[in-house]
Amino acid sequence: MKSNSSNQIPMGKSHESIYQRAVGVITGGVSRNTIFRRPHPYYVASANGSFITDIDGIRRLDFANNMASLIHGHSHPAIVNAVIKQLKKGSAFTMATEAEVNFAELLTARSPGFEKIRFVNSGTEAVMTMIKISRAYTGKPKIAKAEGAYHGTYDFAEISQTANPDNWGDIDKPNAVPVVQGTPEGIKDDVVIYPFNDIERTIHLLDQNADQIACVLLDPVPHRIGLFPATNEFVEAIYNWTRRNNAILAFDEVVTYRVNYSGMQDSYSVKPDLTALAKIIGGGFAIGAIAGKSEIMQVLDPRETFLRHPHSGTFSANPVSTTAGRIAMELFDEQAVLKLNALAMMAREQIEESIKIADVPVSITGVGSMFRLHFQENVPSTYREAYQNKETKAVINELIDYLFFKENIIMINTMACMFATTLTRNDVDRLSEALLRGLKNNETKKLIV
Amino acid sequence: MKSNSSNQIPMGKSHESIYQRAVGVITGGVSRNTIFRRPHPYYVASANGSFITDIDGIRRLDFANNMASLIHGHSHPAIVNAVIKQLKKGSAFTMATEAEVNFAELLTARSPGFEKIRFVNSGTEAVMTMIKISRAYTGKPKIAKAEGAYHGTYDFAEISQTANPDNWGDIDKPNAVPVVQGTPEGIKDDVVIYPFNDIERTIHLLDQNADQIACVLLDPVPHRIGLFPATNEFVEAIYNWTRRNNAILAFDEVVTYRVNYSGMQDSYSVKPDLTALAKIIGGGFAIGAIAGKSEIMQVLDPRETFLRHPHSGTFSANPVSTTAGRIAMELFDEQAVLKLNALAMMAREQIEESIKIADVPVSITGVGSMFRLHFQENVPSTYREAYQNKETKAVINELIDYLFFKENIIMINTMACMFATTLTRNDVDRLSEALLRGLKNNETKKLIV
Repeated sequence: MKSNSSNQIPMGKSHESIYQRAVGVITGGVSRNTIFRRPHPYYVASANGSFITDIDGIRRLDFANNMASLIHGHSHPAIVNAVIKQLKKGSAFTMATEAEVNFAELLTARSPGFEKIRFVNSGTEAVMTMIKISRAYTGKPKIAKAEGAYHGTYDFAEISQTANPDNWGDIDKPNAVPVVQGTPEGIKDDVVIYPFNDIERTIHLLDQNADQIACVLLDPVPHRIGLFPATNEFVEAIYNWTRRNNAILAFDEVVTYRVNYSGMQDSYSVKPDLTALAKIIGGGFAIGAIAGKSEIMQVLDPRETFLRHPHSGTFSANPVSTTAGRIAMELFDEQAVLKLNALAMMAREQIEESIKIADVPVSITGVGSMFRLHFQENVPSTYREAYQNKETKAVINELIDYLFFKENIIMINTMACMFATTLTRNDVDRLSEALLRGLKNNETKKLIV
Repeated sequence: MKSNSSNQIPMGKSHESIYQRAVGVITGGVSRNTIFRRPHPYYVASANGSFITDIDGIRRLDFANNMASLIHGHSHPAIVNAVIKQLKKGSAFTMATEAEVNFAELLTARSPGFEKIRFVNSGTEAVMTMIKISRAYTGKPKIAKAEGAYHGTYDFAEISQTANPDNWGDIDKPNAVPVVQGTPEGIKDDVVIYPFNDIERTIHLLDQNADQIACVLLDPVPHRIGLFPATNEFVEAIYNWTRRNNAILAFDEVVTYRVNYSGMQDSYSVKPDLTALAKIIGGGFAIGAIAGKSEIMQVLDPRETFLRHPHSGTFSANPVSTTAGRIAMELFDEQAVLKLNALAMMAREQIEESIKIADVPVSITGVGSMFRLHFQENVPSTYREAYQNKETKAVINELIDYLFFKENIIMINTMACMFATTLTRNDVDRLSEALLRGLKNNETKKLIV
């Protein structure tokens, strides 16, 4: 107790010393490569709203919000109180709870295409289950996915996420490039890689596998591709193709559900059959969900005589995650969504101003409450255009470090911001001013030019 | 507020009415088929220690403990208090926390083979990642798994979990039977199914795929096979085979880690290379982990020049799950493990007495704090022997319902108990007496004989 009192620096505790202990017991010292940084990651003492205080007492303004998962920032009192109330009644049972039903009602009412829903434990599980549902419904083995898109760690969904110039192949027929060494050939064979937003090439590739494709997986604003939206024409073209070919249009809205009140899908003239959700719908707790057409979701129904897709999970739909998620989404109502998007838009405009003043070839992409900076004059429009080479990555790391250490600002290491409702206009001013200083910084500028 | 005061029955709320709402928004009305029962599941109001109170105020004694995941029963005060403290400081960050390191130190100190560990969000993710690590390390595509074993919902690990007499094929070469319709052929081709505890047949099957097998997956006390342990000879034979053939021995201890202080693996003369964990190590919250040899785990290390298995996860190693898990495992010390196992042994002996008195052909299997009843005179020793036909399933459902409705006792629907430290000798008496009445019950007995 002595060494932890709030007026003292914890005895013998430094980021270095904790990390030294970490590498002794955890591979690489982290369970998520996202939080790794050289020479060591930094350790959190506590966080509140938009601020994270590390164990040295340094308080940083947070634009990453645990990789876009905290729509109301840290330890929101309404969520904390609801969870505490639930905790005292238990966190998981071999029985049902009304918490799941309440939350399912909220989400299905929120997005017109969510006729039925099921909960799982992560975005990875949500995408995996969405793919398995698609196969069970169509009886077909393959999926199609966009080159460069991140959809969690299920290996089928992971193919070509990190494709690079050395291995991505001809754009007319992009290679299926595994992320993990030793990925079975059978997995690669069952994934069709298409170039995002490229209608002609994509339809051609889909046509070549028409009788084999269970679903076309699509993140409508794929962060890792470049955080620019799928065009309405592209989504329509894929939608129409799936209608003609008995395939499922499967949206990954794990990140993008925040964009509109009923998700990014609200921005399109056609809607997906199935949607994978996670991140913000957990209110800060591990969750995932699959939502969509009743007829398709029916493959999961245990009341069916022939159950096509038996499905369970020890912590799925636990009352802690579903309660926290419900409160978070209630608070993220139509007005809150619009207000947050407006604040992010203001930030983009101010940052564009900073870029102009700094006179650097930097551009911004993004939708709603998300945006990302690119170290290229014109906004990229494809994965291959947005792809960062080693030199660009070095510039970005430099700037990310500058913001973290000199400005006490946290951005996602792709140079992206994912806003939370706890952010203010002052915070946005601080960000755009810090970025101006960072972009003007000699070291950074030298690398850019 | 009015309708929820503790002295009143909630207005208009019945299990039927909540379930009616549930089926309107959730496929089958549940997110986990495990908790489904006809005509509807039952809804929890609150739970404490070994008791769950449903929304009608009926208080049941719980031997299921959320499918073996709650080693200290419900809402244990030490866990609840530690989680509340953490919640107020935030539940997840794009930075590291010491909570993960503390917990990793505890678990790696606990089991000698856990040189390094990494956390994920569920047992499904733990097994999937363990398999992907095995492929990345060996460069080989296939896995071998026991017919009938449950290892979560990753489709490679799921093959043949529900194999039945119509499709399981010759025991000399069991078929790879998919659980989900539309499972790609490539997945089936990359899974070798072996008969649990059958050394000769298993080694022969492994030999036939020697240059292709990345890992042999083994749950040492597989619940769905029959909850009897792998023999030391069987584990040794597989271990020796993996040494000869550059393959990984991968234990699934998601359920069985509870058996000894350092897991079921402590019972064997040889140890696995990798172990998947989940359930009790989350202290009631969603978690999973992969632990094992440093050299193999190294494929995940982001500091490597060539990273063989990039790996992240939004909620992986979050401080809520790692804090709850650490407290739970600290409380489950060597003495607590032995005491719990002794209580479960006492229960088994008393139930064996009940079986004798009721004069029914029922047997019991199990290890440590877990046991399972079989409606056959002699304990089964293979999956095919333990396999329940339709008639047996009907008997079991009858008895599970009798216990639930007439005795207010919850068992897992396979007729299994997974003990928690909150159980007492009185609870055990109540269980064995209730089972005696249930087994003597005319309806049940009629079905057995």
